[in-house]
Amino acid sequence: MTTIRSAEIIAVGSELLTPTRLDTNSLVLTNQLNALGIDVRLKTIVGDSRDDLRGVLSQAVTRSDLVVLSGGLGPTDDDVTRDVVAELLSRPLAEDGELVARLQTRFAKRGLDMPAINRRQAMVPAGAEVLPNPNGTAPGLWLEHKGCVIVLLPGPPRELTPMFEAVSRERLAARAEGVPLLRGIVRVAGQTESHAEQRAKPFYERWRERGVPIDATTLAAPASIDFHLTVRSPDREAGRRVLDEAVGELAAAFGTDAYATEDRGMEYVVGQALRTSGLTVAVAESCTGGLLGSRLTDVPGSSAYFLYGIVAYSNQAKQDLLGVDAALIEAHGAVSEPVALAMAGGVRRRAATSIGIGVTGIAGPDGGTADKPVGTVAIAVEGPWGAAVRTRTFPGGREQVKFFATQAAMDDLRRALLQRRGQ
Amino acid sequence: MTTIRSAEIIAVGSELLTPTRLDTNSLVLTNQLNALGIDVRLKTIVGDSRDDLRGVLSQAVTRSDLVVLSGGLGPTDDDVTRDVVAELLSRPLAEDGELVARLQTRFAKRGLDMPAINRRQAMVPAGAEVLPNPNGTAPGLWLEHKGCVIVLLPGPPRELTPMFEAVSRERLAARAEGVPLLRGIVRVAGQTESHAEQRAKPFYERWRERGVPIDATTLAAPASIDFHLTVRSPDREAGRRVLDEAVGELAAAFGTDAYATEDRGMEYVVGQALRTSGLTVAVAESCTGGLLGSRLTDVPGSSAYFLYGIVAYSNQAKQDLLGVDAALIEAHGAVSEPVALAMAGGVRRRAATSIGIGVTGIAGPDGGTADKPVGTVAIAVEGPWGAAVRTRTFPGGREQVKFFATQAAMDDLRRALLQRRGQ
Repeated sequence: MTTIRSAEIIAVGSELLTPTRLDTNSLVLTNQLNALGIDVRLKTIVGDSRDDLRGVLSQAVTRSDLVVLSGGLGPTDDDVTRDVVAELLSRPLAEDGELVARLQTRFAKRGLDMPAINRRQAMVPAGAEVLPNPNGTAPGLWLEHKGCVIVLLPGPPRELTPMFEAVSRERLAARAEGVPLLRGIVRVAGQTESHAEQRAKPFYERWRERGVPIDATTLAAPASIDFHLTVRSPDREAGRRVLDEAVGELAAAFGTDAYATEDRGMEYVVGQALRTSGLTVAVAESCTGGLLGSRLTDVPGSSAYFLYGIVAYSNQAKQDLLGVDAALIEAHGAVSEPVALAMAGGVRRRAATSIGIGVTGIAGPDGGTADKPVGTVAIAVEGPWGAAVRTRTFPGGREQVKFFATQAAMDDLRRALLQRRGQ
Repeated sequence: MTTIRSAEIIAVGSELLTPTRLDTNSLVLTNQLNALGIDVRLKTIVGDSRDDLRGVLSQAVTRSDLVVLSGGLGPTDDDVTRDVVAELLSRPLAEDGELVARLQTRFAKRGLDMPAINRRQAMVPAGAEVLPNPNGTAPGLWLEHKGCVIVLLPGPPRELTPMFEAVSRERLAARAEGVPLLRGIVRVAGQTESHAEQRAKPFYERWRERGVPIDATTLAAPASIDFHLTVRSPDREAGRRVLDEAVGELAAAFGTDAYATEDRGMEYVVGQALRTSGLTVAVAESCTGGLLGSRLTDVPGSSAYFLYGIVAYSNQAKQDLLGVDAALIEAHGAVSEPVALAMAGGVRRRAATSIGIGVTGIAGPDGGTADKPVGTVAIAVEGPWGAAVRTRTFPGGREQVKFFATQAAMDDLRRALLQRRGQ
């Protein structure tokens, strides 16, 4: 029996090729496979076309140790998976008497006669084993062909998921080499992708030379550069040690730019720092319109440190609610460092919190000038340690500028808290 | 020049093969392609593996008229798309001087030196045309090979989307001769999916009998039930007429529950209504933490009607900032209809706006009681016409409860504005 190291997933169904649908089954399958130490190297979504499925499948069975197909097992002519697999592997289809009986019972239980077309679902390719489906009419199938395992699963998630869990437990676990894939992450703020990548590169090279190879991928997430590290090790503990060490090394290389070594957002990192320090925060937002408060309060239990937010969209609101001097706005403009500082100080005094944050900027698409183009945002943080302000220019459309600005504001707060702790 | 009838999409990137990521770019691409009458027959997601990409691409270029690749155009060794395409089609890579200069300018604008590795992004396969990327460093590429058009796009959505829109408009539109697929949408609020589906069903049947068949799909979007209608007609005008009529019929059947017949969110619908009526709004939020203000201000030009927001997370803040009576909170609890009304009235008076909205609830995961479980949210709207309040219980986790609450608050405002106009 072949050991299964790599897999690919083929989703069958024309509805998955429309502009509003994605194949989410593959996430469930990937999760199960990775847990067994099986890599997913390819995913394909193909319509209800015999030719296209044949083309994809013929490559897949020679390329991967395991091919998991989902969908196309229904009773209608559109359901082509069973036929194509049987034909490609030269396994004639024959009706399985037991399956017919099982299907009839299923319909009878609901007081229905089995429609004639459902007999198609009892057709089984020679040499295939039937995977029972307690949640629907389409049985799954398990075949082996020239060192490749082929699994056919029904498309509906509530049928596919339990069936694949059973397949993983009862059949795949014994066939997988059992070298689990361990994942680690380093999230970096305040750097461009290329600069972060350049700093990480020497580590990649060093790791490559080691006994246990570490695989690293860089991903530019919204307002964050993420390094995903994976280690495959038969000894889970040893693998974890190697991975933790690598994560530590990389994080250390980025210093305070590395804001997280787990898959959580900046709002969680900042929340944890506030909670630990016993400090409270209030925010004064203009261009972000409330998004900073919303992100800070996405964290369960954030009421322990988030007291309130003021969205002062108009100049009048900045004066009335935050006590920003009209003359200051007049002199520097609403989007300026002095106004950001006045907003941070104003909200901090009003809320009587340890920290105040002020954000003012131009989210666009209108309102930009040569001096202050769209994307210009001034962010101020005031705490018991004093106040600091910084102006940045963010790229992209309105929603992206808003998101980047909230990320930067939380990052500024995070760095201020780190510095204070270091003192 | 070949006419383009069918396309396939290849997304490149190992991160898209992990259990938490999906290739959402393909939805944007499919939408554009379908609008030109080009069918998407296959989608593939492949890791950063030269061999796997080569295998997939070699089939694709012989199978489809158009192959769109996304991702893998970055500056690092992981970015294999450019190399594999050049190698497979035997098109040697050469550095494009103009591109190098453009990249250097891009970095210089941000006060940075261009890292050496970014030079890779200026390598262009022989015979390829460069697609400019105003939003990032990776240029796109357009190639033709034995009757197949190959388009390489950068992976980040904010770079890919505008680039492909330009490609569709400037290059593909002239090459596609398919029967255009026309799309319509009806968005419905305040109904469950099954109820909405049941009400829509008779229409589906009626449409099926008509000359031009209308295809309808129901999609449960976040806090919205969307009916997507499509018509494929060689006569664009006739098709559009049939589609518009169907959209009108379905929207009429849902009455005021149908909030949009275009693909825009509730914040745009409400924004339009506020702008037309010349009314202004201020919001007082508790459990939504600023998300209501943020969504309202996602709309460009919202400063015309959105004056300010107060995120009163603590009880003290509700009293200090909104003038909510402590006795009222004591008597009914912070999450109650009287408090929501007091918040709406309080923020309306303070901001001197036409309308005030108050939202108070329990986003979870903690804080629920038998009486008021997690997901309980009271929403009040006060305007010149008076005040109304309603309590709902939303399903899901913290972020979902927050989103549903903001959607309901805007929907309540929308209905109040409709009623006022009807008077």
